[in-house]
Amino acid sequence: MSDGALDYGNYLKVDEIISLQELVSEQHGKPAHIEMLYIVVHQVYELWFKEILHELGSVIEMFDGEYVNEKNIGEAVKRLKRITAIQSLLVEQIKVLETMTPLEFLDFRKYLGTASGFQSYQFRILENRLGLKPEERIPYAQKSYLQELSGKRLELVKESENQTSMFEAIAAWLERTPFLELSNFKFVEAYRAAANQMLDAESSALDSMHDLPQSAKTFQQEAIDSSRKGFAAFLDFAEHERLVSTGQRRLSFKATMAALFINVYRDEPILQLPFQLLETLVEIDENFTIWRSRHAVMVHRMLGRKVGTGQSSGYDYLKRTVDKYRVFTDLFNISTFLIPRSELPRLPEDLKIELGFHYSATKSGS
Amino acid sequence: MSDGALDYGNYLKVDEIISLQELVSEQHGKPAHIEMLYIVVHQVYELWFKEILHELGSVIEMFDGEYVNEKNIGEAVKRLKRITAIQSLLVEQIKVLETMTPLEFLDFRKYLGTASGFQSYQFRILENRLGLKPEERIPYAQKSYLQELSGKRLELVKESENQTSMFEAIAAWLERTPFLELSNFKFVEAYRAAANQMLDAESSALDSMHDLPQSAKTFQQEAIDSSRKGFAAFLDFAEHERLVSTGQRRLSFKATMAALFINVYRDEPILQLPFQLLETLVEIDENFTIWRSRHAVMVHRMLGRKVGTGQSSGYDYLKRTVDKYRVFTDLFNISTFLIPRSELPRLPEDLKIELGFHYSATKSGS
Amino acid sequence: MSDGALDYGNYLKVDEIISLQELVSEQHGKPAHIEMLYIVVHQVYELWFKEILHELGSVIEMFDGEYVNEKNIGEAVKRLKRITAIQSLLVEQIKVLETMTPLEFLDFRKYLGTASGFQSYQFRILENRLGLKPEERIPYAQKSYLQELSGKRLELVKESENQTSMFEAIAAWLERTPFLELSNFKFVEAYRAAANQMLDAESSALDSMHDLPQSAKTFQQEAIDSSRKGFAAFLDFAEHERLVSTGQRRLSFKATMAALFINVYRDEPILQLPFQLLETLVEIDENFTIWRSRHAVMVHRMLGRKVGTGQSSGYDYLKRTVDKYRVFTDLFNISTFLIPRSELPRLPEDLKIELGFHYSATKSGS
Amino acid sequence: MSDGALDYGNYLKVDEIISLQELVSEQHGKPAHIEMLYIVVHQVYELWFKEILHELGSVIEMFDGEYVNEKNIGEAVKRLKRITAIQSLLVEQIKVLETMTPLEFLDFRKYLGTASGFQSYQFRILENRLGLKPEERIPYAQKSYLQELSGKRLELVKESENQTSMFEAIAAWLERTPFLELSNFKFVEAYRAAANQMLDAESSALDSMHDLPQSAKTFQQEAIDSSRKGFAAFLDFAEHERLVSTGQRRLSFKATMAALFINVYRDEPILQLPFQLLETLVEIDENFTIWRSRHAVMVHRMLGRKVGTGQSSGYDYLKRTVDKYRVFTDLFNISTFLIPRSELPRLPEDLKIELGFHYSATKSGS
Repeated sequence: MSDGALDYGNYLKVDEIISLQELVSEQHGKPAHIEMLYIVVHQVYELWFKEILHELGSVIEMFDGEYVNEKNIGEAVKRLKRITAIQSLLVEQIKVLETMTPLEFLDFRKYLGTASGFQSYQFRILENRLGLKPEERIPYAQKSYLQELSGKRLELVKESENQTSMFEAIAAWLERTPFLELSNFKFVEAYRAAANQMLDAESSALDSMHDLPQSAKTFQQEAIDSSRKGFAAFLDFAEHERLVSTGQRRLSFKATMAALFINVYRDEPILQLPFQLLETLVEIDENFTIWRSRHAVMVHRMLGRKVGTGQSSGYDYLKRTVDKYRVFTDLFNISTFLIPRSELPRLPEDLKIELGFHYSATKSGS
Repeated sequence: MSDGALDYGNYLKVDEIISLQELVSEQHGKPAHIEMLYIVVHQVYELWFKEILHELGSVIEMFDGEYVNEKNIGEAVKRLKRITAIQSLLVEQIKVLETMTPLEFLDFRKYLGTASGFQSYQFRILENRLGLKPEERIPYAQKSYLQELSGKRLELVKESENQTSMFEAIAAWLERTPFLELSNFKFVEAYRAAANQMLDAESSALDSMHDLPQSAKTFQQEAIDSSRKGFAAFLDFAEHERLVSTGQRRLSFKATMAALFINVYRDEPILQLPFQLLETLVEIDENFTIWRSRHAVMVHRMLGRKVGTGQSSGYDYLKRTVDKYRVFTDLFNISTFLIPRSELPRLPEDLKIELGFHYSATKSGS
Repeated sequence: MSDGALDYGNYLKVDEIISLQELVSEQHGKPAHIEMLYIVVHQVYELWFKEILHELGSVIEMFDGEYVNEKNIGEAVKRLKRITAIQSLLVEQIKVLETMTPLEFLDFRKYLGTASGFQSYQFRILENRLGLKPEERIPYAQKSYLQELSGKRLELVKESENQTSMFEAIAAWLERTPFLELSNFKFVEAYRAAANQMLDAESSALDSMHDLPQSAKTFQQEAIDSSRKGFAAFLDFAEHERLVSTGQRRLSFKATMAALFINVYRDEPILQLPFQLLETLVEIDENFTIWRSRHAVMVHRMLGRKVGTGQSSGYDYLKRTVDKYRVFTDLFNISTFLIPRSELPRLPEDLKIELGFHYSATKSGS
Repeated sequence: MSDGALDYGNYLKVDEIISLQELVSEQHGKPAHIEMLYIVVHQVYELWFKEILHELGSVIEMFDGEYVNEKNIGEAVKRLKRITAIQSLLVEQIKVLETMTPLEFLDFRKYLGTASGFQSYQFRILENRLGLKPEERIPYAQKSYLQELSGKRLELVKESENQTSMFEAIAAWLERTPFLELSNFKFVEAYRAAANQMLDAESSALDSMHDLPQSAKTFQQEAIDSSRKGFAAFLDFAEHERLVSTGQRRLSFKATMAALFINVYRDEPILQLPFQLLETLVEIDENFTIWRSRHAVMVHRMLGRKVGTGQSSGYDYLKRTVDKYRVFTDLFNISTFLIPRSELPRLPEDLKIELGFHYSATKSGS
């Protein structure tokens, strides 16, 4: 109220924000009512992308370095969960854009020229910072994803290719986990033994089912054998390295085992938040999968399979990115190799104390 | 592709949009990570408010005049439904802001000074355009809602006080409805008779329940009597005028009866979309009620009941506006006076044809 | 209050409902806390399936016959929209089930034996009643979808294969549409001419762009040519029949043209609700697509790619059904062949009156 | 696998579940299509209530006793978060019920007699187990909430009045917190000093604003004074006891201070999950507040203000319960008395180690 008083409008730059909607259909003298919605929806997306980048960047920073302060893990989970909350909005928001019918879209689409959602450079940066590698991208119309960008935007996207990604930061943090060989407890060996024991038990149970027709027995025995091979490969260092070298895995063997350890002993106090962390990263991946999939469907609804010269349509292209652009697939796939809690190797008592709080440790030690 | 090519970033003014987040905590040399979220959330709100105003204004225009083109009603419903879709996002979005904890808010709150959500002039305009009357507003700290505004913003808000509101446009449209006395069918009289018949039947049913204790009988008879008085008042022109003059009703008697007619005969072809229209207006009102209520709760969570010098807290103020700021209360209240379909007065055949499509009318006439 | 008084608990059979959760893990003496969630979530799904079948069946009935009462179309839209509201819940509900971690699932999964979500016979009936044809189903482990069912359930599913489906009822209704050749207005011819005119204009515009490099010109001319071929095929009776005979289209030529007519002239009063009807059917299809896709992801999260003897995993199977099990694809694809409103053939005045309400028709005639 | 094989339908008792919908309108020979929705929606609610009770009961059990295993806190948070996920569905589900119009409700409402949502005994138990005290309930029509119940249901509700509630279990757990006086750090004193220091600083800042008009100065000084009184009362044992004795507070002084401690030092490793726990309890409270509020609005939409004999209407009654039935108000109100992190008393180093993990403590100690 006095001179430099900050008011809501000035602080939030409301006048500026709401003056940035210029309808191209109006400039062509054929104002299309619906174009405002199109612009606003996309601008809102860009604001959310900025916020997601703000959160993601800050979490990467927390994990980027030799030492991660335990106090930060809770905060990192909170920020990653904030990203998932925003992603829910991104998905919900598609419903708003879908209130535009294909016919309405045609009212101004011709004026858009080459403008296309593929060009959101913030989203490209976001993908890079999560950990999507340039070589994993699917080219659209034989073009690099960088080709539609220029100037400062191109620079920023290229820069993000070289920054530490969330994937890399987490991978490094997992590799540093000290728990895999604490207290003479060899986790990988113990887990391998437990898995085999479980499969052996399933085999003998099958043997003793005398009423079961032979065909069914064979069928089920094959399933057990296939499972055994799967576990053996999953828990084998050399095989893992091979899969990494052919691009079928991305996380190193050690990091994968650390993630498995956190998954199966997640109830131990020191692992509860790390588990939430891994879970939330998978959730972020999944949410973008959902968003991409919904986005592809919406593009289809708007444009059908309209294409250019023998190219695949926008819809078909988008569909292909849905699963391909996941980043934390290795974390996601761990569930294939979980074994029931009742079969898990038991942690030695001294390791359990290591995984507990100082306070309760001293108390229980007194 | 050529020089002036429109690309996504230029079209949507992305660079401009994402450069409008200036953290006041940074300016004070104490950057608060969370402030970005606060700014982005509010800027997104303002973008949606602009879009809602765009839709609402266009619908008011359709209805503002002597003649409403029937072709427009479907489009009006669509645009109003678009508003409800956006409102769902506004409510969902609160969940994102709630990922900020009270403690985090305190990290930058002191720098905000007098800046407050009460000052969104777009939202004030929105309330006015819906039909909230200045005299119905609850003063905060004894101040007019205009006092916190100045310059062009103040001007725009004041201007909106004088523009035709959605309420007024719909009220006028309802008053013009020709159906209340078409074909010698006097709707109000017929409805009054049907309501009385229904209540008479309830009374006799009660009389014949010989097992019912006298106290229960008295109780239920009182309920029927109270209902009868309610119907009599609702369907009486003079009583309605009295309620209008004391501010208990806002819609005129004729408009109210037209809305009742549309509600009860909504299956007739010509009334199906008008019914959707009324329903959607009530839904918009309800959604803002939900939003205000959620917003009040969030303010409480952030600030508790912090107050200034004997004033009511922001929370208590916001709570009071929740129900008070409804606009289409009279439409909402119609449900009190609906009677079961089996008891409704039957429409005369010729009126039914009037309410049908030309095509089927001619076909059935041939 | 008196003897046979209906109270909430009796009416809703609450005691019965909440006594139907029998934890198989408890029966095995190893109670798994999480199993309750699993049972409740699936029972809730079954209740919603029953409700969806109730709505869907009633709408099919409205459309199954020679004559559809216009008064019913609004109600049909309402019921179909109710289905979409329930589908939103079905999707949201996955989030609740996802609060179960893979490790928790393993606590009781082994006791489930062959029990699997593939066996919901209500959902199979639902698919059939929507219009999924048995021959379109993807066999799982070389087995018919009927193989896992028996007794009364099998009978009901088989019966539903022979009942009129929503697809068939709508297809027949579209074919009966009288508007395609009313008043000497030949819609298909007019639309073909309009499409060609639009493409001609695009071609000449391209010719006159003297600055455009030849390669870009060729590229764009090819796109126009491809589009022209597409339109020609879409609007050609013989080509359509061919596509129907090879299974690439399901809706007849006449029904497709009727759907196109409704799409492009949806603002005409008599077409507003039919347009909502078609739109809602596509939405139902899309919502099940979303649900299947989310469901597949959740199965992956729970089970990873666990498989039986060389079979594809449940996840891979479910993924394949996502797009394949759409029913109203032909309606969904119409957007590929929409042309801007400014280029649409204009309706003759007398046809416009035919498409209007009786009331306004007589009024404007007076 | 053998004969008695468990299949999906048998396991989930699907046939039983979907045979429990008996339309009372059908029994009266006037089948109302919409009644199915009404029954299904309420039965789904009851299934969710059962699941919520299952989760809530298990968490109370974890906290009910002298010693809470730290390993359980993460699991408790997970289960309480599951409840919030279900609550989101409960709220969303109202949208489905709202697709029933008031007129449709009237098609079968008369057959319901006295059946009313007030009678869900599971929900009454849920309220009791959360910690709503019988004496805090608002009587409806001068009747105890127990009066509408009988038999086993009445018994169960009464029993739940005497079981340990979530509120009591958490209150006791907070009271046992050892951290308030560890290592000679007197938290309450330190916090009081910090609050005063903050308010002193605000006062001097105000003094030095020479340009500010006297009226504004007085206004702001009064606000600071009021705040100071608030803090003094909040941090004073005797005053707190007084507020407890008059029913204005429910949580004891010690428990309140423990909750404050957890709130302000929530980044310390050992406090991260306890903080999530308190936050989730407040969220559960808030979600039921939202649900009650939405439910009241829906009842209004359906029935308007229909009343019996001078009683308040169902709507007015429900509205009153919305805020009154909160349980964790004292936790919710803590935000009123938070001070910025920059002003918080610093924890002594040895206490910080106490609040850390054993592993990092030993590591940092080496």
